[in-house]
Amino acid sequence: MKIAVLGFGVVGSGVAELFDKNCASIARKAGQDLKIKYILDIRSLADTPWRDKAACDFEQILLDPDVCLVIETIGGLNPAYDYTKRCLMAKKHVVTSNKELVATHGEELLTLAHANNVNYLFEASVGGGIPIIRPISQCLAANNIDEICGILNGTTNYILTSMGETGVDFDEALTQAQAKGYAEANPAADIQGHDTCRKICILASLSFGHHIYPDKVQTQGIEQITSQDIQYAKENNFAIKLIGRAKRLDNQTACVYVAPHMVKNSNVLANVSDVFNGITINGDAIGEVMFYGRGAGAMPTASAVVADVIDAVKHFHAHKYLSWEKSTGDPVPPNDIATPWYLRDGNKQTITPTLTDWKPWASENGFSEAAFAMRVL
Amino acid sequence: MKIAVLGFGVVGSGVAELFDKNCASIARKAGQDLKIKYILDIRSLADTPWRDKAACDFEQILLDPDVCLVIETIGGLNPAYDYTKRCLMAKKHVVTSNKELVATHGEELLTLAHANNVNYLFEASVGGGIPIIRPISQCLAANNIDEICGILNGTTNYILTSMGETGVDFDEALTQAQAKGYAEANPAADIQGHDTCRKICILASLSFGHHIYPDKVQTQGIEQITSQDIQYAKENNFAIKLIGRAKRLDNQTACVYVAPHMVKNSNVLANVSDVFNGITINGDAIGEVMFYGRGAGAMPTASAVVADVIDAVKHFHAHKYLSWEKSTGDPVPPNDIATPWYLRDGNKQTITPTLTDWKPWASENGFSEAAFAMRVL
Repeated sequence: MKIAVLGFGVVGSGVAELFDKNCASIARKAGQDLKIKYILDIRSLADTPWRDKAACDFEQILLDPDVCLVIETIGGLNPAYDYTKRCLMAKKHVVTSNKELVATHGEELLTLAHANNVNYLFEASVGGGIPIIRPISQCLAANNIDEICGILNGTTNYILTSMGETGVDFDEALTQAQAKGYAEANPAADIQGHDTCRKICILASLSFGHHIYPDKVQTQGIEQITSQDIQYAKENNFAIKLIGRAKRLDNQTACVYVAPHMVKNSNVLANVSDVFNGITINGDAIGEVMFYGRGAGAMPTASAVVADVIDAVKHFHAHKYLSWEKSTGDPVPPNDIATPWYLRDGNKQTITPTLTDWKPWASENGFSEAAFAMRVL
Repeated sequence: MKIAVLGFGVVGSGVAELFDKNCASIARKAGQDLKIKYILDIRSLADTPWRDKAACDFEQILLDPDVCLVIETIGGLNPAYDYTKRCLMAKKHVVTSNKELVATHGEELLTLAHANNVNYLFEASVGGGIPIIRPISQCLAANNIDEICGILNGTTNYILTSMGETGVDFDEALTQAQAKGYAEANPAADIQGHDTCRKICILASLSFGHHIYPDKVQTQGIEQITSQDIQYAKENNFAIKLIGRAKRLDNQTACVYVAPHMVKNSNVLANVSDVFNGITINGDAIGEVMFYGRGAGAMPTASAVVADVIDAVKHFHAHKYLSWEKSTGDPVPPNDIATPWYLRDGNKQTITPTLTDWKPWASENGFSEAAFAMRVL
């Protein structure tokens, strides 16, 4: 069984390394030898141990009938979208870590995979190496899933944890995270919540059965969090976490949003610190389950990619697990969900009673409508 | 597709109820209708809504070619062992929640299933509804698993949590747990650690690839834990937890044991309270992941059983995921693992430095060799 890797960055090189390191046990579990035949990257591989696998171009991989499975770790929409479609149409299985592509075009690509009788698998797209896609689609298959709450972005969780532990403000914590390699030079996708948004959209689409588009989801990042908020949280037994949340409302509408929350210390998500991710799922039979682990990094993410490869190889001609339908309407913002709110207005801070809208309460209780507000979980 | 349920206790009746409740979504996910044709129990079903499904005897199920899949929720070794073997030999898939049977005869039954080209699935045997068997065997397939630590028994975790919260002693906490239905009238299997032992043996067999027998595993329960220990733990930022632990030693030997531990509050397992279970797994690629949820109860366990049924139906003629080999030697006790120890000797309590054996240190530091000792995690 021959494999091609598209994109040789952090995840792609982790995949190659993991195939190398655990090749015997991977072959045993897959039931056959798996060999990387090609690696495609814009950068030259001439100075790497992988130079003999460098592909000339994408067409070489597409046209090689030996290649039955393609690993897409390019990231972003282009050229990953075009390459993925052409691989699936050429009846090659595709395994990806590309959350942006799955969140944006998942329904189309899953349908295309189905039509060509191949698999499109993306365990690595959410939660890095944490098993989450397969547990939702298989292990919780007997459940109707009612709610998902996730700390889905390691960068923002590291920043919030470090603000809490050291008392530094947001800018300083971001600079430290960049120095440690936990935040990118351009951190917008992380700190503005877009990365979390893509991931909660994938989990919500899978759980609720219809595609939920990231650009339709109310998304708020963590830039407004101050050390004053963090201090209040610590003194009152909360932790501030950026949460992606998807909830099935009573009328079966999907409510999906991303925002920072005051999380009570008794909530299991409050103890998910540093670069770790944590995801709670509520199902009608199982109640609450939680998954925890490293949500990013070369080897954890590669672990999820290679697990998908093994699964695809073992079920080469079998049914696909993953699918969801076209969108049936935009997800709604959480306007009808009642929670307590944290309010900060200048030096004043408080937790409100349980409310759907904090503004009427605020104006009756000496807080302005310009106050900064966060829901309490 | 016709199904038979053997044993109509808490789990078996939960399975029937879940099939009823979520039948449409279960059929959609399985790709076909699934109907319970028979239910077999020693007790009469005459006064239940299931009376028309009551089987006369096991042979009626065994000889009915319509029944392709049997759910075994009898529990215990007999008659479950005999029934399971005969179902597998009759080429019927078997799904079970029976941890004692899997821990004792798993290797033989998996081999028998393989020889007859059917599946023997047991997601529900460990952690109730928490996805754990399939994540280990599939999602973490690219990893060599180095260590598993689990709070695997809800009864003992409830007792330890309630001792911590209310200050009551062990006997009182046990009586309260029995009154609430969280502990059985005969609680020996739970409080002596045997239930935890069976579950860690299943996880260790699956992760390390060789059968590990419960009767070869050093097992200590929680009867010796006093409110004095609990008080010390609270004051020093620990929680006392009954842990099943399996660790691959440097020489590739499996070290497996069950014992109460002082768990640091910074360890994610310390926050797993009440009847909840939590399992951490360390893999060479993924690092640490944790799974959390309700480890028992009718509907959570039924959720895992039905997920296995869906999986078996979808892969009716495909490869089996689960297998391990015959035992290659007994697991070793943790004599070579160095940890700090908690010691209690009369009114004296302390935490030692990191040691493999606490006794020499104790005698040099004014503690007797009769002290009660617990490892620190």
